Amino acid sequence: MATSRASREQKIEALIEAIHPPEAADAIVVRRHLDALTKPPGSLGQLEALALRLAQIYGDPTPPFRHKAVFVLAGDHGVTIHGVSAYPSSVTAEMCRNYVRGGAAVCAIARAVGAEVVVADLGVDAELRAVAGLVHRKVRRGTRNLAVEPALTPDEVVAAVLAGAAVVDECQPAADVIGLGEMGIGNTTAASAITAALTGAGPATVVGPGTGVVGEAARRKLEAVAAGVARLRGVQDPLRVLEEVGGLEIAGLVGVVLAGARAGRAVVTDGFIATAAALLAARLCPAVLEYLVASHSGSEPGHQVLLDALDLRPIFRLEMRLGEGTGAALAFPVLDAAAAVLREMATFTEAGVSGPTSEG
Amino acid sequence: MATSRASREQKIEALIEAIHPPEAADAIVVRRHLDALTKPPGSLGQLEALALRLAQIYGDPTPPFRHKAVFVLAGDHGVTIHGVSAYPSSVTAEMCRNYVRGGAAVCAIARAVGAEVVVADLGVDAELRAVAGLVHRKVRRGTRNLAVEPALTPDEVVAAVLAGAAVVDECQPAADVIGLGEMGIGNTTAASAITAALTGAGPATVVGPGTGVVGEAARRKLEAVAAGVARLRGVQDPLRVLEEVGGLEIAGLVGVVLAGARAGRAVVTDGFIATAAALLAARLCPAVLEYLVASHSGSEPGHQVLLDALDLRPIFRLEMRLGEGTGAALAFPVLDAAAAVLREMATFTEAGVSGPTSEG
Repeated sequence: MATSRASREQKIEALIEAIHPPEAADAIVVRRHLDALTKPPGSLGQLEALALRLAQIYGDPTPPFRHKAVFVLAGDHGVTIHGVSAYPSSVTAEMCRNYVRGGAAVCAIARAVGAEVVVADLGVDAELRAVAGLVHRKVRRGTRNLAVEPALTPDEVVAAVLAGAAVVDECQPAADVIGLGEMGIGNTTAASAITAALTGAGPATVVGPGTGVVGEAARRKLEAVAAGVARLRGVQDPLRVLEEVGGLEIAGLVGVVLAGARAGRAVVTDGFIATAAALLAARLCPAVLEYLVASHSGSEPGHQVLLDALDLRPIFRLEMRLGEGTGAALAFPVLDAAAAVLREMATFTEAGVSGPTSEG
Repeated sequence: MATSRASREQKIEALIEAIHPPEAADAIVVRRHLDALTKPPGSLGQLEALALRLAQIYGDPTPPFRHKAVFVLAGDHGVTIHGVSAYPSSVTAEMCRNYVRGGAAVCAIARAVGAEVVVADLGVDAELRAVAGLVHRKVRRGTRNLAVEPALTPDEVVAAVLAGAAVVDECQPAADVIGLGEMGIGNTTAASAITAALTGAGPATVVGPGTGVVGEAARRKLEAVAAGVARLRGVQDPLRVLEEVGGLEIAGLVGVVLAGARAGRAVVTDGFIATAAALLAARLCPAVLEYLVASHSGSEPGHQVLLDALDLRPIFRLEMRLGEGTGAALAFPVLDAAAAVLREMATFTEAGVSGPTSEG
């Protein structure tokens, strides 16, 4: 394992070293421009904060976003043997077919907002080679059972992170904006363990109903999370956390975040699981933080814990808890609007509009 | 005045009588369909509630929204003589020119989301006949000073309401979705008085900074609101409230709401002032409530008071306070997404996806 870890650190390091904080706009200059536009200063509230962030990522004036893509990574979880989800594991593979046929929620929302959906198999426990339109990047068929043993080996974690980065680079290199998405029955269990491990929050405060588990199943889910977290003994190293609790699609999303930041793109979080991947990526490489935009805070209790740890304020609070990139896609038009405000509005001087009276 | 009131009631009554509650979808059938789609039941949270509302307005399946329009109605307010705004009254006319040239925030956001902006002069205190692209429906040049006398006569209120309805019918008869917007220096003063009058909330709890007034100007604003409300002596009749405190653009928006509901379209609220118009319209004709969608709750304290009175839950809470239709336009893509979920997602059966396990 020592060799494997050295090799691992080398490969991930190369990816991380290529990520730089955005050089783009001077925040003071952008803020001054926002205040010169024909509206009372600050009157667009958080939309102005978003515009400022986009200016810092893309430069000021911001370009229009022509290509938007949601990356939906899929993987299965060995922990589902404990009945931690309301749905059987087979749903992960079935939903992959639904994505490529365009019948899932993220497909409908992405079409409505003019975004592409890229679906990649990082670790589904089914043979999906024959599924056209699916990106084949399977690292292994599902993780091991995190309740009783490490979910992944160090090599598997590295392979999944690099596979996720490769999906961005190969499938949508022209994407101006990158949305995170995932599918994996059992993955709120893994995400709960990640959240507890990275933030120090107690498992009971971050475990929620996921797809809708209650009673005995919820109790088993909490036990599984607690067991995974306990094995980490306080270790917060993101790659070690992924080894212990998985999953393959979450590791892949860490790669998507890193590749997005490396390409200088805004990376839009989604639900609880994708936001866990964002925090893992930010812990691996703090410069990632400047490229993140939070789409929503959902109804899983751990989701807000992660957003707080990332110091991100979400655009929506709509009690969504589906994941699969639905929240990220829904946020894309708000990014378009924020960028348009910065890029297209007239200033008071340009428009010949009077400014505030001295008394105002 | 008695004759005028009788005539007034006749004209407004004719508009109201043509508004019917939507006959469209059966809520139970739509709810069952939403739960048959490939996602855990309810996992899209408030987006499902919005989809249900749209199905009830437009029928199930909902059509795609091809033509979206924001109606920005403009008018001036005599009360500005007391220095209740941070900006001079001349800004109302100057901004009308900015709208038709496309330089305002609502123009940038509307372009980003694929919506039209219709700008109408209902009562700007300037000669704007020569401004091309502006819809000319001026009832009078600004309201009287609501702090000392009724802002409008009964006839002026009727004329403004009917003018607003006519703008919808004539300028964007094909609009599938209607957004409310307004411009009028001093109109948070009028909207504060309307909110206090209709809800019984104390003036001090609904008066906010508007464009950004503080100190002495804020005190004068509160006094003006209190004076207007006091003259009403508890009367809540919407047309009487408009007579006492104005304004022309707010009365016009009441007409836009009524015309939108009459046409069976979703009417999307905007900021504090437009939401005041929505509550006035709903008090005139309760069937209007079923056509309203709340875009956002902003930072003016009276805005949430109005949304509570309308029993509407906003899509966004982004501390916006600009008005002019910016919030309505920002919400349009969310309506698109909600409708697309209902219209385009596959069911579990169609997609061959397994449902929940019995235990789940």
